[in-house]
Amino acid sequence: MEPPAPLTQDDRDLLHYETRLTRPVAAKAAEFCADGRLRHVIFSGQLSPHLLDALAGTADRIRLLSQTRAGQDFLIGLAPHKRAMLYFTQPSTRTFLSFMAACQILGITCNEVRDPSTSSETKGETRFDSIRMFSSYFDLIIMRSPIARLAECCAYLMNDLEASGSRSVPIINAGSGADEHPTQALLDIYTLQRTFNFENPKDSPGAGKLEELRKQHGFEGLERGLAGKTYGFCGDICRGRTVRSLAMLLAAYPGVRLVFITPDHPRLRMRDDLRDRLRERGVAVVELDSFEAAIDGRPAIEQIDALYMTRVQKEHNEPGDAESLAAIDFSQYRLSMALVSRMKRYAPILHPFPRDQHFGEIPHEIDNDPRAMYFRQARNGMWIRAALLAHVLGLDVAAAPPGLGARI
Amino acid sequence: MEPPAPLTQDDRDLLHYETRLTRPVAAKAAEFCADGRLRHVIFSGQLSPHLLDALAGTADRIRLLSQTRAGQDFLIGLAPHKRAMLYFTQPSTRTFLSFMAACQILGITCNEVRDPSTSSETKGETRFDSIRMFSSYFDLIIMRSPIARLAECCAYLMNDLEASGSRSVPIINAGSGADEHPTQALLDIYTLQRTFNFENPKDSPGAGKLEELRKQHGFEGLERGLAGKTYGFCGDICRGRTVRSLAMLLAAYPGVRLVFITPDHPRLRMRDDLRDRLRERGVAVVELDSFEAAIDGRPAIEQIDALYMTRVQKEHNEPGDAESLAAIDFSQYRLSMALVSRMKRYAPILHPFPRDQHFGEIPHEIDNDPRAMYFRQARNGMWIRAALLAHVLGLDVAAAPPGLGARI
Amino acid sequence: MEPPAPLTQDDRDLLHYETRLTRPVAAKAAEFCADGRLRHVIFSGQLSPHLLDALAGTADRIRLLSQTRAGQDFLIGLAPHKRAMLYFTQPSTRTFLSFMAACQILGITCNEVRDPSTSSETKGETRFDSIRMFSSYFDLIIMRSPIARLAECCAYLMNDLEASGSRSVPIINAGSGADEHPTQALLDIYTLQRTFNFENPKDSPGAGKLEELRKQHGFEGLERGLAGKTYGFCGDICRGRTVRSLAMLLAAYPGVRLVFITPDHPRLRMRDDLRDRLRERGVAVVELDSFEAAIDGRPAIEQIDALYMTRVQKEHNEPGDAESLAAIDFSQYRLSMALVSRMKRYAPILHPFPRDQHFGEIPHEIDNDPRAMYFRQARNGMWIRAALLAHVLGLDVAAAPPGLGARI
Repeated sequence: MEPPAPLTQDDRDLLHYETRLTRPVAAKAAEFCADGRLRHVIFSGQLSPHLLDALAGTADRIRLLSQTRAGQDFLIGLAPHKRAMLYFTQPSTRTFLSFMAACQILGITCNEVRDPSTSSETKGETRFDSIRMFSSYFDLIIMRSPIARLAECCAYLMNDLEASGSRSVPIINAGSGADEHPTQALLDIYTLQRTFNFENPKDSPGAGKLEELRKQHGFEGLERGLAGKTYGFCGDICRGRTVRSLAMLLAAYPGVRLVFITPDHPRLRMRDDLRDRLRERGVAVVELDSFEAAIDGRPAIEQIDALYMTRVQKEHNEPGDAESLAAIDFSQYRLSMALVSRMKRYAPILHPFPRDQHFGEIPHEIDNDPRAMYFRQARNGMWIRAALLAHVLGLDVAAAPPGLGARI
Repeated sequence: MEPPAPLTQDDRDLLHYETRLTRPVAAKAAEFCADGRLRHVIFSGQLSPHLLDALAGTADRIRLLSQTRAGQDFLIGLAPHKRAMLYFTQPSTRTFLSFMAACQILGITCNEVRDPSTSSETKGETRFDSIRMFSSYFDLIIMRSPIARLAECCAYLMNDLEASGSRSVPIINAGSGADEHPTQALLDIYTLQRTFNFENPKDSPGAGKLEELRKQHGFEGLERGLAGKTYGFCGDICRGRTVRSLAMLLAAYPGVRLVFITPDHPRLRMRDDLRDRLRERGVAVVELDSFEAAIDGRPAIEQIDALYMTRVQKEHNEPGDAESLAAIDFSQYRLSMALVSRMKRYAPILHPFPRDQHFGEIPHEIDNDPRAMYFRQARNGMWIRAALLAHVLGLDVAAAPPGLGARI
Repeated sequence: MEPPAPLTQDDRDLLHYETRLTRPVAAKAAEFCADGRLRHVIFSGQLSPHLLDALAGTADRIRLLSQTRAGQDFLIGLAPHKRAMLYFTQPSTRTFLSFMAACQILGITCNEVRDPSTSSETKGETRFDSIRMFSSYFDLIIMRSPIARLAECCAYLMNDLEASGSRSVPIINAGSGADEHPTQALLDIYTLQRTFNFENPKDSPGAGKLEELRKQHGFEGLERGLAGKTYGFCGDICRGRTVRSLAMLLAAYPGVRLVFITPDHPRLRMRDDLRDRLRERGVAVVELDSFEAAIDGRPAIEQIDALYMTRVQKEHNEPGDAESLAAIDFSQYRLSMALVSRMKRYAPILHPFPRDQHFGEIPHEIDNDPRAMYFRQARNGMWIRAALLAHVLGLDVAAAPPGLGARI
């Protein structure tokens, strides 16, 4: 037997933070705050309903300011002196561009490192030396990595540097392995907040008129807000980190019910740890294998208040999965016009995108239905990320003179 | 025999616009206008002499403003609130950088997607979903694609979105397959406009003095402007989309004569459709196989008013071409100092660049001749693209206070 | 025997400048100046102690201005009308990002070409045509190339263009082959200037108090400034171009002594030409094979005033080197806490970075020692490059209104 390879400095760097990584979320979250704000954004557990409301308010303000030239000038004047590093060693176009646009809305200059093979790492540099280099030149690091806890470790590194009087900058996690993608959860929540505000017809499929929905369409008990609603998740529940993060955020709202619709296959169905964590919080969890399976005696598709579709992440299959997955009748987990027509008239359809044209979980003919909210959801991501950046950098969006925005 | 592969959503998306694609240019052009301006820039047929004059005027104004710091500040203040996406899935450095610089002159922030393999398309996303993503985050899409009509289809997509009340942004075609490259034709025309203005000695090889050319050098009938002149094109006439586009634009000026100098080989000589279209418009078309072949009884090289050289595009050879092309004596299609010395003293030499050092269509010793206009042509491309962007975005370059520019 | 391949235009372009390349540095340096400033920055021999002092002063001013928002706004207002091209055909992250940040501090917009395979060069374009293209669109070219004298030739090209009345822009050499890397030497010197100012405790390991060092710690003769000190260089002396450049710059200061600590191997020890040039200038040169070897009767590690560590550049090994290099006991050329503890308390440890975690020339436990100056050195690189850009572009940093910066 060969002896194990000796540890590299990269290995030792991660081990150094091992004891901090294994603490409960609550214990860790406090370390990622400073001055009453988030200092680093690492996991969705940092996002309380209170903070989510504040960020949504900021995002709403930014989008209104963006409707006038004077408002746009105010926004790009907020942080032209800030330089961001987008360090994306895991391929991503959508999240990357969304963050770029979010930075640019606030005037922040963007820099990027995307291909690790062109970087100093090929000369033997450790990841942490690379991160310290970025923190030397830039004011903010937005990072996406295939290594599960790397962003969290980088936040600890920054905190340690600060404690020793060295330069330190905020870390924003833009996706770390199969683990966390907090800003995706953030934009999903923001989209639901907009929808269930029932204010803007474009954001709320049911014409945006709560009274009408209550009186003319039979939804007497319908209330504003995220609480008390039934959320459906369909597709790859096991490997979709966006499902995990969004479910955990929704769990913080009273009276929600979460319905998971997925084939009963170990690579797709809900993982035990998520079910346990949701039940610990007292959330009603329902697991179904079809849109037609019943909730409260009626087919699920007719009962849910919002539907979150996902792509089956074939690229994360393990050896041996192909055969058992091929036996599944996936047609049951694709949306169709017939299914959509049975959904509640105000229920939005979300998808973290990209959708998969070959799998076809959302056929394109659905795009024109007012319930199809996934394109607005993408643009919401830009606004809420801009709001998050403003929050982290302490930019005062509310300081805009009255009258600058379109409808302020 | 294998059954044909089923259509993908990408295939269906293109088929969806099939009937619009096959309409005559005039019918289509109207759809790419809005508010009396170009909304999308897709093919050179959209560029009338009237519009070409207006754009040249804007470009002249921009370059004058760029000569003072106050003028530059005015320009970068025009659109700092705009974010452009340069979506270039076909390799290009020159066109790409020229558009980057053009955007930056106006303060526009640039973003890019160049390598399709890092994009969401690898996750099964359709091209149109990608384009809608870009239109969610950015205010303008400048695209270059190997797929012939993709830019045109994207413009239809944007129009359809607008019609349905969704967000929609302008599309600018920066080269689509072997098909169209309208902004290259635009910069070629702008270079000819500058040259035949006879105003600036740097732009007009013959010292820029029309009177002198008429009286001292025997060009009595010489007039300002593009009309009535003889334009020579040499090299790869068949596959050079820049030749096609420029020839069609020149055809709109009265009295022009177009001379094509190329080996008589099916991969190089003029395609029938171009000859037909030019003759339909009443343009005099002359096809020669050497610079020495006669026009009006004298060698062509001595008769042309402007010479457009091109690179033989070996990368577009088809199987079997190599042998028949190897039999051609290409030395006849390379410029030399001896040939240049016989050209009219005011006749500019243009080339869309890059030139090919191995083929040698323009040897470097010619660079110092005042007729060598190809480097200024490149810089002209930056100015006229800035003018086009200003036009499409409705930026008022003429609003600059008097005195800001160098010679306004 | 095969006949030699015919010369390409690229070959001829380089040969064209052959006679200029082989002149002495002093003769060349004059051509790279204009208006009393550096016009092109090509080799470290252009950097006199007088100029180094001026640049350090500018860098100090920029970093102070950067500490307030008003100061930052002043800085980004200096050159928002300038567009830089970073043309890096040799992989580099650190130098690249440092220049990006330096540009952005001054408001300069950055553009990049990094992968030559996507460029027009694949279509047969010469390097000089590419450079002229860049100079058409941009105001400044910062270039890094594996070709030793390319940057210098590009500077000649620009000078020739200017002489002929054509557009011409400054060239900044960001590393050319194994040859020159003048801005690295610049940041090394700036770091030593800061350290030996004894003003800021963070820059000067010995608490920054010269009097204390003299009186309480036995360094009676210690003076401010770079003159009269002993500089140690350890590692890859032969192939480290940063060592060569820094050594030559230090040679211009009176009374310096340079100590080179490296295995006696032809691929690592000092090259004869460097030794000759240093001795010509009257510099004391000492070559040792260990930190323990004696200077003035005491181990070198205890005698040096500053230690410059380097990475062994395995990627530049030649065939056959592997075996003879494997026989060397490299543990002697790695720093350790034990060695650091014996260094003078004020002696900084520098490293051009990246360091190599596998070779381990600087183990990470040393990072917390106040003498570890390599992370500040990296950030110093950003400030001094910004100062250099301001110098080359003629930006007046000193024109900032009093009171803008933190401590001005």
